[in-house]
Amino acid sequence: MRKRKLLPILKQNGLWKRHSAKVARKEPALPPGTLVHIGERMTEAFSLRLIAYDSDHLEKLETQKIDASLRSRKEQGATWLHVTGLHEVDKIAELAGLFEVHPLVTEDILNSRQRAKIEIHDDYVFVVSKVAEFEANGQVAVQHFCLILTSDTVITFCEAPTAIFVPLIRRIEEGRGRIRKLGSDYLTWALLDAVVDHYFVVIDEVGEALSKLDEMLQQDITAVEAGHLYASRREVVGLHKLVRPLREICTHLLRGESPLLTEASQLYFRDLYDHSIHVIESTEELRELASNLRDFYLTAESNRMNKVMKVLTCVATIFLPLSFIAGVYGMNFVHMPELKHVWAYPLLWLVFVSVAGGMLWLFFRKKWL
Amino acid sequence: MRKRKLLPILKQNGLWKRHSAKVARKEPALPPGTLVHIGERMTEAFSLRLIAYDSDHLEKLETQKIDASLRSRKEQGATWLHVTGLHEVDKIAELAGLFEVHPLVTEDILNSRQRAKIEIHDDYVFVVSKVAEFEANGQVAVQHFCLILTSDTVITFCEAPTAIFVPLIRRIEEGRGRIRKLGSDYLTWALLDAVVDHYFVVIDEVGEALSKLDEMLQQDITAVEAGHLYASRREVVGLHKLVRPLREICTHLLRGESPLLTEASQLYFRDLYDHSIHVIESTEELRELASNLRDFYLTAESNRMNKVMKVLTCVATIFLPLSFIAGVYGMNFVHMPELKHVWAYPLLWLVFVSVAGGMLWLFFRKKWL
Amino acid sequence: MRKRKLLPILKQNGLWKRHSAKVARKEPALPPGTLVHIGERMTEAFSLRLIAYDSDHLEKLETQKIDASLRSRKEQGATWLHVTGLHEVDKIAELAGLFEVHPLVTEDILNSRQRAKIEIHDDYVFVVSKVAEFEANGQVAVQHFCLILTSDTVITFCEAPTAIFVPLIRRIEEGRGRIRKLGSDYLTWALLDAVVDHYFVVIDEVGEALSKLDEMLQQDITAVEAGHLYASRREVVGLHKLVRPLREICTHLLRGESPLLTEASQLYFRDLYDHSIHVIESTEELRELASNLRDFYLTAESNRMNKVMKVLTCVATIFLPLSFIAGVYGMNFVHMPELKHVWAYPLLWLVFVSVAGGMLWLFFRKKWL
Amino acid sequence: MRKRKLLPILKQNGLWKRHSAKVARKEPALPPGTLVHIGERMTEAFSLRLIAYDSDHLEKLETQKIDASLRSRKEQGATWLHVTGLHEVDKIAELAGLFEVHPLVTEDILNSRQRAKIEIHDDYVFVVSKVAEFEANGQVAVQHFCLILTSDTVITFCEAPTAIFVPLIRRIEEGRGRIRKLGSDYLTWALLDAVVDHYFVVIDEVGEALSKLDEMLQQDITAVEAGHLYASRREVVGLHKLVRPLREICTHLLRGESPLLTEASQLYFRDLYDHSIHVIESTEELRELASNLRDFYLTAESNRMNKVMKVLTCVATIFLPLSFIAGVYGMNFVHMPELKHVWAYPLLWLVFVSVAGGMLWLFFRKKWL
Amino acid sequence: MRKRKLLPILKQNGLWKRHSAKVARKEPALPPGTLVHIGERMTEAFSLRLIAYDSDHLEKLETQKIDASLRSRKEQGATWLHVTGLHEVDKIAELAGLFEVHPLVTEDILNSRQRAKIEIHDDYVFVVSKVAEFEANGQVAVQHFCLILTSDTVITFCEAPTAIFVPLIRRIEEGRGRIRKLGSDYLTWALLDAVVDHYFVVIDEVGEALSKLDEMLQQDITAVEAGHLYASRREVVGLHKLVRPLREICTHLLRGESPLLTEASQLYFRDLYDHSIHVIESTEELRELASNLRDFYLTAESNRMNKVMKVLTCVATIFLPLSFIAGVYGMNFVHMPELKHVWAYPLLWLVFVSVAGGMLWLFFRKKWL
Repeated sequence: MRKRKLLPILKQNGLWKRHSAKVARKEPALPPGTLVHIGERMTEAFSLRLIAYDSDHLEKLETQKIDASLRSRKEQGATWLHVTGLHEVDKIAELAGLFEVHPLVTEDILNSRQRAKIEIHDDYVFVVSKVAEFEANGQVAVQHFCLILTSDTVITFCEAPTAIFVPLIRRIEEGRGRIRKLGSDYLTWALLDAVVDHYFVVIDEVGEALSKLDEMLQQDITAVEAGHLYASRREVVGLHKLVRPLREICTHLLRGESPLLTEASQLYFRDLYDHSIHVIESTEELRELASNLRDFYLTAESNRMNKVMKVLTCVATIFLPLSFIAGVYGMNFVHMPELKHVWAYPLLWLVFVSVAGGMLWLFFRKKWL
Repeated sequence: MRKRKLLPILKQNGLWKRHSAKVARKEPALPPGTLVHIGERMTEAFSLRLIAYDSDHLEKLETQKIDASLRSRKEQGATWLHVTGLHEVDKIAELAGLFEVHPLVTEDILNSRQRAKIEIHDDYVFVVSKVAEFEANGQVAVQHFCLILTSDTVITFCEAPTAIFVPLIRRIEEGRGRIRKLGSDYLTWALLDAVVDHYFVVIDEVGEALSKLDEMLQQDITAVEAGHLYASRREVVGLHKLVRPLREICTHLLRGESPLLTEASQLYFRDLYDHSIHVIESTEELRELASNLRDFYLTAESNRMNKVMKVLTCVATIFLPLSFIAGVYGMNFVHMPELKHVWAYPLLWLVFVSVAGGMLWLFFRKKWL
Repeated sequence: MRKRKLLPILKQNGLWKRHSAKVARKEPALPPGTLVHIGERMTEAFSLRLIAYDSDHLEKLETQKIDASLRSRKEQGATWLHVTGLHEVDKIAELAGLFEVHPLVTEDILNSRQRAKIEIHDDYVFVVSKVAEFEANGQVAVQHFCLILTSDTVITFCEAPTAIFVPLIRRIEEGRGRIRKLGSDYLTWALLDAVVDHYFVVIDEVGEALSKLDEMLQQDITAVEAGHLYASRREVVGLHKLVRPLREICTHLLRGESPLLTEASQLYFRDLYDHSIHVIESTEELRELASNLRDFYLTAESNRMNKVMKVLTCVATIFLPLSFIAGVYGMNFVHMPELKHVWAYPLLWLVFVSVAGGMLWLFFRKKWL
Repeated sequence: MRKRKLLPILKQNGLWKRHSAKVARKEPALPPGTLVHIGERMTEAFSLRLIAYDSDHLEKLETQKIDASLRSRKEQGATWLHVTGLHEVDKIAELAGLFEVHPLVTEDILNSRQRAKIEIHDDYVFVVSKVAEFEANGQVAVQHFCLILTSDTVITFCEAPTAIFVPLIRRIEEGRGRIRKLGSDYLTWALLDAVVDHYFVVIDEVGEALSKLDEMLQQDITAVEAGHLYASRREVVGLHKLVRPLREICTHLLRGESPLLTEASQLYFRDLYDHSIHVIESTEELRELASNLRDFYLTAESNRMNKVMKVLTCVATIFLPLSFIAGVYGMNFVHMPELKHVWAYPLLWLVFVSVAGGMLWLFFRKKWL
Repeated sequence: MRKRKLLPILKQNGLWKRHSAKVARKEPALPPGTLVHIGERMTEAFSLRLIAYDSDHLEKLETQKIDASLRSRKEQGATWLHVTGLHEVDKIAELAGLFEVHPLVTEDILNSRQRAKIEIHDDYVFVVSKVAEFEANGQVAVQHFCLILTSDTVITFCEAPTAIFVPLIRRIEEGRGRIRKLGSDYLTWALLDAVVDHYFVVIDEVGEALSKLDEMLQQDITAVEAGHLYASRREVVGLHKLVRPLREICTHLLRGESPLLTEASQLYFRDLYDHSIHVIESTEELRELASNLRDFYLTAESNRMNKVMKVLTCVATIFLPLSFIAGVYGMNFVHMPELKHVWAYPLLWLVFVSVAGGMLWLFFRKKWL
């Protein structure tokens, strides 16, 4: 059958990049704080990147060693520690110890199945989210992302290298915008804003696939398979699962429950909240659209079935009686007076034509044809 | 097939005026406050219209230049600055600077994908909404609309020229009603009231299309295509998306969270709230009606299928046995005694008629015919 | 087809009395407080009826003139002004002026499309509702109803003459019950109670129609058309729209937010609240019942389709093979040895009977017949 | 057709005991407090039973006369007045007067259509509920039940004699448990607990019927009629309507809003709340189960339709071509060379068999057979 | 038919281990606090295991005798009493008396139909939950589990021996983690955490079965029966019923409403809350997935029906007209001039082929084949 080229979202492999199917599960009832990396290893390299800045200075460092120098307190500006690779449990535990982070928090960092959430602790704020990054091959790589905001430092944890913070790094390096003048809470906002902004890319992608599907349904329903509709709906549900916890995270950030979230940054977190609501509402609209498409497909299919049935009924209703009449005059009775009339055969054709014509007229009146 | 003339809403192009499909998207992770116009350019001309008034005076000005004179403070009355055309980013930034508006607000003004919302700042109130205007060709043009209320000035931003404020302008000019006696919060109400009132026009249009569809379904279901029902439901969803944020905006205005919203105007904002709820409820009723129509269509379709099946079954049940009997006496066996009887052929016709008659009687009793 | 006599609710014209289809719509963006009657003129005559009473006195007056004497303050008892006919905008405006009612309230009184609501003002309470009155012809006339409660007077506005307050008037005249001993808030309760009580009549009517439909479905599904189910569901939705705002109105009355609502009348308003909840819940049960009926209808229809299909399949499965066999022995091959056997024809009948019998046995075992 | 014996719930008459169809309706707009018994008369005998007890004494009295002796105040223990038969309006009014109950409350007692609710008055607590009693014939009798709790007396009103309080009476008489040591609020709890406990019996009955239906669907779908599913769902909705108001009643009792509800009894009312939630949740599970059964039935029915269609298609697809071929060689053309070949007829049989065989092979591969 | 090996969840017996169908029900209206074991006896042996520990000491005891020594107060650490077997009503009542537990609580412990809940009493906290344990045979054994937290002791009650606390016991014995250093509230957390962790195992199992079903549906829809989908949905509903009350329990624990829940353990209870939300959300996702699978199945089935109908229609539409033509020339009229033409028969074959070819071309264009 003729199929137009479909977006990757409707292909067999789907939108989401799949990793190995079997994800390590923690043994139930291990003591709390037992540090095990849950999830698959998405990168081989463990790396730790430090960017410390204030309005005038900028210090960069790439290292694999955790030591106290990472904790050197600054008067101004902020320090950003970005950790890539969660399989090096010992190093992450060391880093957590350095910043006096609770073992349960460390456990959540290492657990890539942990759902997105926010925790306001006395000395730090802990945020778990998921980073969705659109890759060149048309798939979306989703990874676990954690962020710890302390008074002067922001520590972020990723499972694999990601490019979504590159524009932010460049902005810090070039001193554009106000980022160099503001502290660690502004940096937190900038990081989360980058995460939320990338959700829009995924939403647009799914939305485009649904529009394409809609258009296809309108033009030629046979080009669409039920599996496409099912796949698109599954993607929307996956997306909804991803963005739903954003509302809760942003609400807590907006309320400024921690002294680490300064008055000055409230305006920015309100903006973030706004974007999150937009992301969530867009996802819900996509869900509605996907349901609508499925309903339309079912209606259209039942319509086509109806048409097929009508054709069948018309054909049977015309030809079964005609065949019967023909069958009657094919009988071999010795005494069938009609058979010998000269005009019988032409007259019978008249009967055939008028029966068929009458039927057709009836069907047209009933709008079956 | 015979179709009656349908309302534009059920045509292919739909209710909503469509602009170029590709809407500019902001590059993710740009620094906040980077001013870029997001959305398509809906007009070529940038214009700024100033109307300053109090009970006794009226001053009008149309300009393209932003300067401090726009900010000249008045003791009484109010000043209305109406900006048309959001593509002139620099001028809008200049105007925003003049009124000390936060860069994030300016960013929202320029972003035509921004969802409707309200923000209460210390010195001003910022409202984002959508203006829906019914055009002569039967379509609805939806555009981004922003409003900033300061103590003495109301600044409004539109993407394209709109006629919905014309009666309000005339009212100000002619000094009718109490508008010249009251301040900027009353002007804000008058502007938002005009926006909400125009939603009613769209709701009435969609409602009329649904009533038409309902009537068509009742009279002649074959005149309705599944696509019509689908289109009407899509319009209702689009409408719901448009009016849903009104509740939140009006709730905040009603609570009088800002000192700019005086006691005196609370009564008017309550009226606005009331209209908004009416708009939202009407939309929800339309949605229910659209679902109801679809259900009725499906039921009616399945009914018609049922009837078609019954006709097919009756025809087949009558003629298949008759044809079989005719076939039997068309066989060429040498020894078929019946064939030679003189009355066999007329008797067989009796059999034919009585079989068919018995079947028909059965079908009438079973109400299949 | 045989149809039993149906209740009016299932007739084409429906339960609700329809007036002229085109309802006047207010021009958008008219100045607020511009007084225009929105809705159709339901009566020709404008009338104003005054009943002033206390425990000992009763004064009645029917007039068309508005003057200050209507406002004569009483120490005890209450005054009830009942206005019929909203098309006399000037008189209503005059009356509103006399009682110092806000122009926006007057606008709501005149707008028969206004949704039901309650407004607590400083000096008066304003209630908008709908009066549903069951008429002799089996239809329900719905009209706009407004009520203003001031400290000593209750003003009610109707579009057309109504009989629902007749028992209340008689009670006041005869001094039965406690109404003559209590003030204007008790009168307000008595009026709203009469309104709510009449909703029960409509609910019972719709409920009876649904029960009738249910019974018909159980006994003979062919007597029911899809349109009946659709009509009944539409009535229930119309009813729900009518009764839904009652909850909000009663909640506000119950909370006693205005000093005009005395402690003593709280008990009565609680009773009113109770009735309203009962009305709303009954409506929701009717909705559930209507959905249930539709589901049952669809299931039963699909069952009948199934049976029709089985009959068709059985007939075709029995006679198509038999016809084929008959066809074979109708062929004109020169060399067909079977044709010459003396017992061939009777034997073939044996084959016919055993094939048909075998098939029938199979169908009985599969429960297709 | 073979049907297994079904539970009474699936019989035509249903679970709920039906009384005369026409229930008296109160004339709308009667003055409040007008005492009319609404509902049918469920018993002929009016009876009043008094049980007064404290730890040491027990007094029993059965009477038909209302006098002040019923109100004799006790220091300790509690008095339980149980009224059966609501049609004796005068006696109930007299009793209500004796305990200074508000006329609106008396009206609610007499109105058997009154929905379940709780009212906290200054001197008493008024509870309306429904008593569901499982009778020997497998049906459930539902009756109106009211309870008034004063400081030392509990008055209960039933429409008809009921056995559900018999164990409680025996407990009081025998002095088992702590009931003799505690006051009227504990007695209130004991009474309501008996009411709620009997709901469990109904839920179990309905649940068992649904399980039976489920089992029947799994084993032999033809033994189930759509009407059974519909009936079972109607029972569940009726049950839900019955138990839904329990949550509200228990919440108010639990909050201890009245001084009549002592601290000591809070623990018991919490237990009651717990049971009520259990009752409500169980009902909701039954509803879900009923929906699930209907969905399964529809799916299974559509599956069977599918199978029937496939059989029809296979038969038609095999025999229509074969019949055509036989028909061709039944034609009477003078010049048909095939007819004269000696092997033509056996060869044609080969064609018949191979066409049929090929078709069958195709159908098996497509899994149609 | 070919079926792949299915997971146990899709087998007839289902996921949940079933015990004897008839569960003992308490006689309604028994006096409260009457101690009866409700539920079936899941084990023969009653056992009581005591583990008392602090940082330095560990004491273990297995006994069947209840005496005051079980209540010996410790300064530090905690005591864990684990009771297995609820049928020994007397011993449990004795134990409850020893710890001064309210009779209603004891009643709940003995009632295995009691829904999960939490009760904060003055001296103790009482938690009811269900323990779900995955057994070797692929089924899940669900049992009633109660926990009482007093200041120094945690008492747990199980119906049958369970292995889910084994790792916790080992942790206490070996002194791993911080359990030996903390008190009874931490032990409570550890116990509930073990319960919640085992829910994940069940969720994973159900999720895997659904994925398997999904995969089967994608590859070969005929391998799936409607019963499988129904079964899987029933399992998900059962799971949801099990996990739903967790939210309420954790919320109360988190709020620290009892002084027994120390500040220090709040962080752990927050972690527990988090896991519970994860469990509930995962269950809701499974439910969505199950609905999605059913919808897909129905769509795919209706698609297949459509295809079958098309084949039938094509076959009938081609062969009915052909058979009619063949029938015509099988008639025995004496005067049929066509029959004698030499080329008539070959020409008729041309007609046959072109009619069939034209039909086929039409069907391909309509995409019916």
